[in-house]
Amino acid sequence: MAFKPLHDRVLVRRVESDEKTKGGLIIPDSAKEKPQEGVVVSVGEGARKESGELIPMSVSANDRILFGKWSGTEVTIDGEELLIMKESDILGIIDDAKAAQAA
Amino acid sequence: MAFKPLHDRVLVRRVESDEKTKGGLIIPDSAKEKPQEGVVVSVGEGARKESGELIPMSVSANDRILFGKWSGTEVTIDGEELLIMKESDILGIIDDAKAAQAA
Amino acid sequence: MAFKPLHDRVLVRRVESDEKTKGGLIIPDSAKEKPQEGVVVSVGEGARKESGELIPMSVSANDRILFGKWSGTEVTIDGEELLIMKESDILGIIDDAKAAQAA
Amino acid sequence: MAFKPLHDRVLVRRVESDEKTKGGLIIPDSAKEKPQEGVVVSVGEGARKESGELIPMSVSANDRILFGKWSGTEVTIDGEELLIMKESDILGIIDDAKAAQAA
Amino acid sequence: MAFKPLHDRVLVRRVESDEKTKGGLIIPDSAKEKPQEGVVVSVGEGARKESGELIPMSVSANDRILFGKWSGTEVTIDGEELLIMKESDILGIIDDAKAAQAA
Amino acid sequence: MAFKPLHDRVLVRRVESDEKTKGGLIIPDSAKEKPQEGVVVSVGEGARKESGELIPMSVSANDRILFGKWSGTEVTIDGEELLIMKESDILGIIDDAKAAQAA
Amino acid sequence: MAFKPLHDRVLVRRVESDEKTKGGLIIPDSAKEKPQEGVVVSVGEGARKESGELIPMSVSANDRILFGKWSGTEVTIDGEELLIMKESDILGIIDDAKAAQAA
Repeated sequence: MAFKPLHDRVLVRRVESDEKTKGGLIIPDSAKEKPQEGVVVSVGEGARKESGELIPMSVSANDRILFGKWSGTEVTIDGEELLIMKESDILGIIDDAKAAQAA
Repeated sequence: MAFKPLHDRVLVRRVESDEKTKGGLIIPDSAKEKPQEGVVVSVGEGARKESGELIPMSVSANDRILFGKWSGTEVTIDGEELLIMKESDILGIIDDAKAAQAA
Repeated sequence: MAFKPLHDRVLVRRVESDEKTKGGLIIPDSAKEKPQEGVVVSVGEGARKESGELIPMSVSANDRILFGKWSGTEVTIDGEELLIMKESDILGIIDDAKAAQAA
Repeated sequence: MAFKPLHDRVLVRRVESDEKTKGGLIIPDSAKEKPQEGVVVSVGEGARKESGELIPMSVSANDRILFGKWSGTEVTIDGEELLIMKESDILGIIDDAKAAQAA
Repeated sequence: MAFKPLHDRVLVRRVESDEKTKGGLIIPDSAKEKPQEGVVVSVGEGARKESGELIPMSVSANDRILFGKWSGTEVTIDGEELLIMKESDILGIIDDAKAAQAA
Repeated sequence: MAFKPLHDRVLVRRVESDEKTKGGLIIPDSAKEKPQEGVVVSVGEGARKESGELIPMSVSANDRILFGKWSGTEVTIDGEELLIMKESDILGIIDDAKAAQAA
Repeated sequence: MAFKPLHDRVLVRRVESDEKTKGGLIIPDSAKEKPQEGVVVSVGEGARKESGELIPMSVSANDRILFGKWSGTEVTIDGEELLIMKESDILGIIDDAKAAQAA
């Protein structure tokens, strides 16, 4: 991928909500304000602390995530519609491995 | 459970207010602005201090909690309606053990 | 008591304003914006400093306090109407012992 | 006095503005937005620094002070109308001793 | 002078704008939003750092200063109309000595 | 180039959105709120930390970047229309080298 | 010059926008929101860090600068119209030497 988000930003590919995920998460199309699911495409280096050190990112590429419906800025890269958002806009990580074991 | 909240977020299962808890807490259905009761499903790693260290969470899975009625974001995971909120939205922990002893 | 407030929150039992306290504090019912008197039921561990250490609470259970009329969130615990507020909403502590000596 | 202000709060007795002070300070009754004069009744321990230490108060009991007309919360203690305000609401201290020497 | 400003506050005597200063500064009466000239009467100890130490004041008594027209709170001390403002409201110091040498 | 941005500011030359980049990024003219592409012309020294040290910039001259459509202030330097923005307004860096390899 | 800006303030002489600078910067009179060019007359000591140390200024007297059109406060010193602004209002420094070499 040819795009490197800056600081604590994350590039995210939206996963359509009518597509049932392995982890069994379903978000009906009518639920407009509900969080949306996505996959992390690439991440920045992290924000910088007062002391100048980088704060490592808590998400990494390929993580399945939930994020608020209105989070992020839309951007078209290589013809694909993606989102750039701050890590703090991400609500959490969907752990498919665990989910698969649990199933 | 296949969802890991990020940072200082907490995944919460709402406890219906007409269900009298062991600790004897009752919140009448008409009291719309009153805090609501819930159970912690999973917690994030905690927020990060300026120095980069994690601040440990004050709640853990299975804690019975009270939270403000309008706190959190609704999310459907494995077909179940849950809430993602920040730890700071949690008002306190209901200690059923102590409550049981006191009864 | 079966409820533990989180962080720097305090659980408070309101003292009716028409009840003259030992310390001689009277708040007439008509004075709607005046602070109210209460008794601390239980306190949280305290807020956490940047460095991660807890800041000890300045009030403890059974302290008689004054707080702003609109402070806190109402909650019903064991059938009793109580208030959860932040320590910073408390204006000060009424020292009945000293007051009794002074009388 | 049976009331201990919390943190960096100060309990203040208002001095009527038509009463000419020793220091010669006169605030006409019509000057509605002008600061008001008062006497400190009791002070809190001080606010707490990030490091957890107390910041000592800059005013102490019996100091004559000026404060903004709209500062503080009215409270009735032992039948007397007093004000609880933050130390930062106090504009300065009137030094009667120096004023007396200067006269 | 019998008034001690608190913290980083400064007591200022306004200099009438139609009075040409030694430094040659003229502010016409019609220029309503322009900064005004004044003389520092007394200064506080300074604000306090996070670490608890005082930050020394950058102005001292008798400094000729410029300040924003709407800065400060009017106060009458010993029958004289003065202003209490924060040091941060002061735009700069007029150096009459240098000005005299330059003339 | 004869212009040095101050602090954490960046001087940016806008790349027209109808011009297809090597990395294959296309932003249609109608997508008015979408981020825009640009090239960094020069950068400041970086913001300063509380401790006084400089925080090094994360972008450097010739970086191809995406930035929010409404970011920055327009400025004409040597007859050319450029933008001055803060580094925090930059969403990320387009890595043409990687993109070329990937193609 | 007989005026010393306080803290991180800078005294600036506006350069008329119809005057073509050596560096070739032209700002047409009609471009009302565009940054303006100026020359630094004198600078303050710098803002103070939490630790109490001064943060050195990034501009110095005689620097040619660009600043936002609405930045600063107008002041008349020695009959001349000048501007007092904060260093953070300055967008960058025009390097005439480099510009001359480049020409």
